[in-house]
Amino acid sequence: MERLPDVGVLTFAGGMRPRNYAANPLEYRANSHFMYLTGASIPDAVLWMRAGRSELFIDVPDEDDALWHGPSLGTEALRARLGVDAVQPMEHLQAALDSAGDFDRIASLPTPDPQTRQRQASLLMRRGWSPTDFETDPESVDRTLALAMVEARLIHDEGAVECLRRAAEGTAAAHLAGMRATRPGLTEHAVRGAMEGAILSAGMVTSYPPIVTTRGEILHNNLHHHTMKDNDLMLADVGAEFEGWAGDVTRTWPVSGTFTPTQRAIVDLVLEAQLKAIDMVRPGVRYRDIHLESARVLTQGLVDEGILRGEVDNLVERGAHALLFPHGVGHIIGLDVHDMEDLGDLAGYESGRSRAEQFGLGYLRLDRDLRPGMMVTIEPGFYIVPAILDDPKIAGPFVDDKTLDRGALARFEDVRGVRIEDDVLCTEGAPEVLTASIPKAAAEVEAVVQGR
Amino acid sequence: MERLPDVGVLTFAGGMRPRNYAANPLEYRANSHFMYLTGASIPDAVLWMRAGRSELFIDVPDEDDALWHGPSLGTEALRARLGVDAVQPMEHLQAALDSAGDFDRIASLPTPDPQTRQRQASLLMRRGWSPTDFETDPESVDRTLALAMVEARLIHDEGAVECLRRAAEGTAAAHLAGMRATRPGLTEHAVRGAMEGAILSAGMVTSYPPIVTTRGEILHNNLHHHTMKDNDLMLADVGAEFEGWAGDVTRTWPVSGTFTPTQRAIVDLVLEAQLKAIDMVRPGVRYRDIHLESARVLTQGLVDEGILRGEVDNLVERGAHALLFPHGVGHIIGLDVHDMEDLGDLAGYESGRSRAEQFGLGYLRLDRDLRPGMMVTIEPGFYIVPAILDDPKIAGPFVDDKTLDRGALARFEDVRGVRIEDDVLCTEGAPEVLTASIPKAAAEVEAVVQGR
Repeated sequence: MERLPDVGVLTFAGGMRPRNYAANPLEYRANSHFMYLTGASIPDAVLWMRAGRSELFIDVPDEDDALWHGPSLGTEALRARLGVDAVQPMEHLQAALDSAGDFDRIASLPTPDPQTRQRQASLLMRRGWSPTDFETDPESVDRTLALAMVEARLIHDEGAVECLRRAAEGTAAAHLAGMRATRPGLTEHAVRGAMEGAILSAGMVTSYPPIVTTRGEILHNNLHHHTMKDNDLMLADVGAEFEGWAGDVTRTWPVSGTFTPTQRAIVDLVLEAQLKAIDMVRPGVRYRDIHLESARVLTQGLVDEGILRGEVDNLVERGAHALLFPHGVGHIIGLDVHDMEDLGDLAGYESGRSRAEQFGLGYLRLDRDLRPGMMVTIEPGFYIVPAILDDPKIAGPFVDDKTLDRGALARFEDVRGVRIEDDVLCTEGAPEVLTASIPKAAAEVEAVVQGR
Repeated sequence: MERLPDVGVLTFAGGMRPRNYAANPLEYRANSHFMYLTGASIPDAVLWMRAGRSELFIDVPDEDDALWHGPSLGTEALRARLGVDAVQPMEHLQAALDSAGDFDRIASLPTPDPQTRQRQASLLMRRGWSPTDFETDPESVDRTLALAMVEARLIHDEGAVECLRRAAEGTAAAHLAGMRATRPGLTEHAVRGAMEGAILSAGMVTSYPPIVTTRGEILHNNLHHHTMKDNDLMLADVGAEFEGWAGDVTRTWPVSGTFTPTQRAIVDLVLEAQLKAIDMVRPGVRYRDIHLESARVLTQGLVDEGILRGEVDNLVERGAHALLFPHGVGHIIGLDVHDMEDLGDLAGYESGRSRAEQFGLGYLRLDRDLRPGMMVTIEPGFYIVPAILDDPKIAGPFVDDKTLDRGALARFEDVRGVRIEDDVLCTEGAPEVLTASIPKAAAEVEAVVQGR
C-alpha cells in the first residue's frame, strides 16, 4: 500500500466452482493474492484496501444457513481474527467504491475464475474503470500493483516458512505412503490413492494434479491406469498444500524394490545433478546458472554413457541436454505451486530478463538472482520422449551430426523417465531443503519399497 | 431426437476449472448431459445433433502437445470409440451451425460453468438464438429438450446399472476403510483420508464433497478437524463415482466400537425406518409416500421414547418429525448424485406435482411414481439441530403444545446426528440394494470397527 498511495486495491477471493451442477461444487480454493493478504479462504469475499485501511466484504449467511451449515463466525469475530479494519456485508461494497472519489484509480489483479471476472468487470465499469485480464491482455494489468505483490510474496517471512514446512511434512507422508503401496500387478491408482489419502489424513489437500506414473516420459501425465510391472520405474510428482501453501516433490522408485543397472545409473546421475544444483541455492546466485549447471552435470554423465558426444560446455550451449532434459530445473513456490504464474513471467523473471528462444531453456520458469527467503524447487530429470527424439526440427541436427547416439540411448529404454525434486529455501547461509526427510538416493528408496 | 424432429441440439462438455491459476486446474468432470450422450469426458468438447446425425467438435491438440501429454487418440479412433457420426475440429462448429438453416431452432441445456455459458451464448447469438440459463431463468430452458433428457436419464439401462454397481463397489471400499481408520484421539481427517484414498485406489473419484464428521447434526458439514472421542458417533456420507456414475452412501458408527444405549436406540430406529422405506421401492409406488412412511416409523419410535407426544399420523401430518428429521428421505441418483438437479425439479417432480410448503416436506427432492430402472437413495436420519429446535417459528408451536418434550430429548444428546443411506434400484420385482454389502446394522458396524 505504501507503493500505491493514490490507488484503491480490490482483491477477489473467487467463487465456488460447480462440479456437475451448482450445488455440487469442487473443493474450494481462494485466489492466492486474496489468501496472502487476508490469511483466509472465504468464497466470493472481496478485500478493499485504500488509504491504509482494509475492509473485507462477505456474503452474510442466510437466515436458515445455520440449519444446514451450523453456526458461523460473526462478522466481528472474523474481523478480529483476520486483523482487517472492518468486515461488511457484500451489499455495501458498491457504495464503498463509489465513495472512493479521492483516489486516482482502482487497481485489481487478475482472477482465473470467469464468474468472478464478470463481477470484477461490473464493479469497476460503474466507475468507468476497466477490468484486467492477464491471460488475454497481459499489458492491461496494473504493473505497479502486480510488482508490489510480487515483491511481497517473493520473500517468505517466518509465518510463511512455517506453513511451507507443514506442507513439506504432508508431502513427505504422501511419498512414504506411495512407496509402501507400490506392488507389481496393481495399477498406478493404488499408489495415487495411498498418496492422496495420506495428504487428506494430515488435514491437507493436494497442491496440484498428481503425477503418479510408470510412464514418466510423459511429462504431464495425469492418468493412473497402467498396471505396475517388475521392471517399471514409478515416478510420483505429488505435493500437499497446508492452509494454501504448497509442497512439490518428485521421487522415482523401482516397482520391484531394486533398480536395474541402467535405471540405477540414470537415477544416480539425476541425483548428482540435483545435489549440485541444491548447493547453489544461495543469495546472489542467478537461478539460470543453477539450471545450466545441472544441465552440465547431466550432460557429462550422458557423455560418459556414450549417449551424447562432444564437449560438455559446448553441448549445453547448443541445448543438446534438452533432448533428454527438456524442462527447467525448477520454479519459485509459495501459495501457488508455480508461485504467481497468474502474472506470467512478472514474478519468475527479473526486470530486463526474458525467456530464451532455445528449446529447453525457453521452458525455464525462473530467472532471478536468489535472495534469502525465496523458496524454489530443484528438479532435474531425464526422459526418453519419442515426440522429442523423433522430431526432425528438435532432434534432427543432433542426430545428423552424430551428437546423439540413439543406439547408446536404446540401452536405457527401461528408464523411460526419472525426476528428483525437492523444495529448497534460500537462507543467508547454506540452503535449507524443507523436504529433506523424504528418501531420495537410490539405496534409500529401495529400502523403503523393499520394507513395504 | 425423435421428440425434437425440427430442432438441432447443442450439448457442451464444459471447460477445465482453474484452481489458483489457469495451468493448475481442478479435477476435470464433464457435464452430465454430455457424458450421457457421448460416454466421454473431453474438456471443451461440443456435441451437435441434428436430423439423426451426431457430430462431436473437439479442440485438436497443438503440435507440441505430444511432447508434454504423450500421443493422443486420433479423431477417427475417437469417432469409432464413441459411435458418433463424425469428430471434427472446433473451428468447424460455427460453420456447422450456420448451415443448419432448415431447422426451426437450436436448443441447448444449461451448463453451470460460466465460461462455457459465455461460449454457448456467443455461438447461439450469431444465429439470433438466445442461451438458456436455468439458474437465473428456469423458464428460458427448452422444456421439450429438458424433458426428453429427463425421460432418457431417469430409467437406467443395463450399461448404466453396471456402472452404478461399480460405483457402489468403490463406495463400499471407502466405508470399510473409514470404519477401520476410526480411532479415538485422531481427527476426522484420518477417516476422510482413508475413505477417499480407497476410492482413488479403486481408480474412481468422489461423487460429491464428503461429509465425515462427529458433528452429524450439522447436515452439510465439510469440515474434518474435530478430534474423535470415545463416545462420539462418526457419520460418513461418502460416495465414489465410476466413469461419471455416482454412488451415495451414509453410515454412522461408534468411534469406540460400541454404541451407547441411547445411540443404539436411535440407530436401530433409523435402520427400521430405512428398511421399511427400501421395501417400498417398487413400480407404481409414489416416492413421497415412501418419505412419509419412513417419517411415520421414526415418529412412532420417538413417541415410544417420550420425545414426541401425540398420535403418529397426526404428528406426521403436522410435520412434527421434521424437528428431528428435517430433510427428504432421498433422491434420484445417476450421473449426478442428485440426478439432473441442474434442471431444478423437472426431473425430481412429476408433471403436476410441486414442492410442499411445510418445513421438512418442502426439502423432499423426489416426488414421482417409481418405475423399473429408476435408482433412488433411501436415507432417513435423526439430528439434534439447535438452529431448528431453538427456532420459535419452526419448533415453537410444538414446544408450546408440549408435542416435543425437550427433557426427554436431552437424554439423547450423545447421538447428535444419525443417517443410514443406501442406493436402491427399482426393478420389476423386489428392490435391489446396490450398496447392500456395506455393513449397516448396529452389530455389523460395531464388529468392523472393533476389528480395526
